Amino acid sequence: MRNVVGAVCINCGAEYEAGDRTYSCTKCGGVMEIIYDYRYIKSQLTREKLLSRKEYSLWRYLELLPVEEGSKLSPLRVGWSPLYRVEKLGELLGLQNLYVKDDGLNPTASLKDRASAVAVVRAAHAGMSTVACASTGNAASSLAGNAAAMGLKSVIFVPERAPKGKVTQLMIFGAQVISVKGNYEDTFRLSAQAIEKWGWYNRNAAINPYLSEGKKTVSLEIAEQLGFKAPDYVAVSVGDGCTIAGVWKGFKDLYALGFIDRLPKLISVQAAGCCPVNRAFTEGKPIVWMEENTLADSIAVGVPRNGEKALRAIRESQGLVVNVSDEEILEAMRLLGASSGIFGEPAGVTGTAGLKKLAEQGRIPGDAVVVSLVTGNGLKDAASAQSATGEPLGIPPDMDLLTAAIAGLSATRIDGIGVP
Amino acid sequence: MRNVVGAVCINCGAEYEAGDRTYSCTKCGGVMEIIYDYRYIKSQLTREKLLSRKEYSLWRYLELLPVEEGSKLSPLRVGWSPLYRVEKLGELLGLQNLYVKDDGLNPTASLKDRASAVAVVRAAHAGMSTVACASTGNAASSLAGNAAAMGLKSVIFVPERAPKGKVTQLMIFGAQVISVKGNYEDTFRLSAQAIEKWGWYNRNAAINPYLSEGKKTVSLEIAEQLGFKAPDYVAVSVGDGCTIAGVWKGFKDLYALGFIDRLPKLISVQAAGCCPVNRAFTEGKPIVWMEENTLADSIAVGVPRNGEKALRAIRESQGLVVNVSDEEILEAMRLLGASSGIFGEPAGVTGTAGLKKLAEQGRIPGDAVVVSLVTGNGLKDAASAQSATGEPLGIPPDMDLLTAAIAGLSATRIDGIGVP
Repeated sequence: MRNVVGAVCINCGAEYEAGDRTYSCTKCGGVMEIIYDYRYIKSQLTREKLLSRKEYSLWRYLELLPVEEGSKLSPLRVGWSPLYRVEKLGELLGLQNLYVKDDGLNPTASLKDRASAVAVVRAAHAGMSTVACASTGNAASSLAGNAAAMGLKSVIFVPERAPKGKVTQLMIFGAQVISVKGNYEDTFRLSAQAIEKWGWYNRNAAINPYLSEGKKTVSLEIAEQLGFKAPDYVAVSVGDGCTIAGVWKGFKDLYALGFIDRLPKLISVQAAGCCPVNRAFTEGKPIVWMEENTLADSIAVGVPRNGEKALRAIRESQGLVVNVSDEEILEAMRLLGASSGIFGEPAGVTGTAGLKKLAEQGRIPGDAVVVSLVTGNGLKDAASAQSATGEPLGIPPDMDLLTAAIAGLSATRIDGIGVP
Repeated sequence: MRNVVGAVCINCGAEYEAGDRTYSCTKCGGVMEIIYDYRYIKSQLTREKLLSRKEYSLWRYLELLPVEEGSKLSPLRVGWSPLYRVEKLGELLGLQNLYVKDDGLNPTASLKDRASAVAVVRAAHAGMSTVACASTGNAASSLAGNAAAMGLKSVIFVPERAPKGKVTQLMIFGAQVISVKGNYEDTFRLSAQAIEKWGWYNRNAAINPYLSEGKKTVSLEIAEQLGFKAPDYVAVSVGDGCTIAGVWKGFKDLYALGFIDRLPKLISVQAAGCCPVNRAFTEGKPIVWMEENTLADSIAVGVPRNGEKALRAIRESQGLVVNVSDEEILEAMRLLGASSGIFGEPAGVTGTAGLKKLAEQGRIPGDAVVVSLVTGNGLKDAASAQSATGEPLGIPPDMDLLTAAIAGLSATRIDGIGVP
């Protein structure tokens, strides 16, 4: 990889050459970060060159990705998700320049496809036939889907709490699923042991530093979709910490290349019932384990493996942190759907919930350019969505009964959408 | 609309000027079709012009759509779904040039977004504030989502059988949902009466001829994605008949413009438990009501409102019809997932199931260029998917137990994906 210099441990600073199986620092066990040769990349890539490309997927940004030259790229169309300007939602929140990036429209319906696409390409290029990970669901299904499309086998460890819809999805993709009777931490530990024992390609995001490189493409797209401008704020839901770290890396890359002239502030949003990263940020202390008490299962991570990277990203960006209740998450789900036609899963809309809270507290200037990242599709977790909506109006096929029912409804309103 | 001449009744041939509220023939009640001025369109649009466009949604084909000049276009990114070349699946089916068009990646996760996008644009341009339809689910959620994004209200009639996930999705979009205690026919009739009574914009696909115009964009994309070539066959699941009619219209438009030099044969696939269109085609008789006995709820339509248009499309294309069992549908779901990383709902993969059956019967030449249309996302109907997959392997977080379980599994295989 001519574009990659190597990797550096974010903890002790030890340096490594770019290699396939160097997942974490052999000196201190720390998480690693990939270092690029920006001078070389600059010689290969310009904004104009990007604009002329017809490849609308994350492979659009190949020069900025840790993929060996000549690798067979994964076939699913990952990335280039829409960035919507959501005027009505912006009005409701008092934000005049609000955008939503809907990453729920990825092939397996979450942002994690970006990491998995890089994982399966690297695994296949390294000649490995099996990929594995532990996940609360989205990393799992994205790995299973991308592996299937790439012709690889997958072994997925999920905690037994994972929603059925998510587990079903990955079984449809032909994955060997191990449902671990325990929490995410138990699941992660078992997966790590199994991966070690059987020598599978490790897609555990915090351990494999190449994966946040896939995730960073969401920022490359945001900047390009805004005409190579960084927004003022980007709101991100935070669980393991890998996504917000990837978001930050993407903007830093573009800044290093001179493609954008400033960096955004990151908004780290966690569920109040599981917010170890935000707590550590607020208290200025190390990250300490927390219980996993939230319905936003994709970010219910008591021991965030990428917590340090996440903290560093929030601090470097001079960002903000905010925690939201499950009720605020469900409210954000209704709000995004009814105002903008966007259906996110609980963890997917947590960023929007946090943004709403900060906006109401007057902590975001009304004229700031703000992007809220929706990280997963609401169809993945119909049960949670149902608790947000209640039941439809049931009625026999009779116009008189319908007329009476409609008359009764007219007085009320549903989510601000009035009955005609 | 300079590009539209008017509409013609496909039953009695009566002609109408292009107007907003002319939904069906006032002379005989027949279904209508929109007629274009191809000479004018040719003067406005070339293949080269299309290729230079950066708009990657159905609005890419604005010159071929019945949208008034100056209309505000709907903001959700509908269309330009990926066309995957699926080599592994092709090998399994003995088809060397097999493609899958994954329309489950639309904003509300089905092909029906294409019709709903046109509907909300036309409704808004006509100054209407409420749109309505009856639907087994996908037309409903697509209308609700697109209406929300467009700032319109929506009223949706669903039969009580509709899967919970689908109903939830449209309630998230702020729709007023009426769950009708009856079948699709009861639901449709009640919606028609209510739409008449309250004067809502009618998105019932068979009644509103503008909607199959939205659906036809899937064919415009297929042809463009294949380099302005028509495939030899296109396999489509058929319920109401509107989709296959739209698919045919798209290819005919391109042929009339000279953008493609031949037309494909259509493959109409229905569930064996509800196949009134295919039965009429095979027997050469009129369409007669059938029971709705299939888990593929999106195509469980006993009285296909667009049946005549569908029959005409199959006949004109010199196409094929085939019926598949629910078990064959679930098998196609597993096959698409495990071989290609594509997760379709039952009705979404019915086309693939039919294609498999025809290929096994030797009725499709191995070297034909074949496109299988996946019309909806599997996440919409997790319950059906679960019946296709079974349960994952549950295990406590213990390596010895895992090792024993993995050893036990090695003898078996899951959907052809071996345990490593």
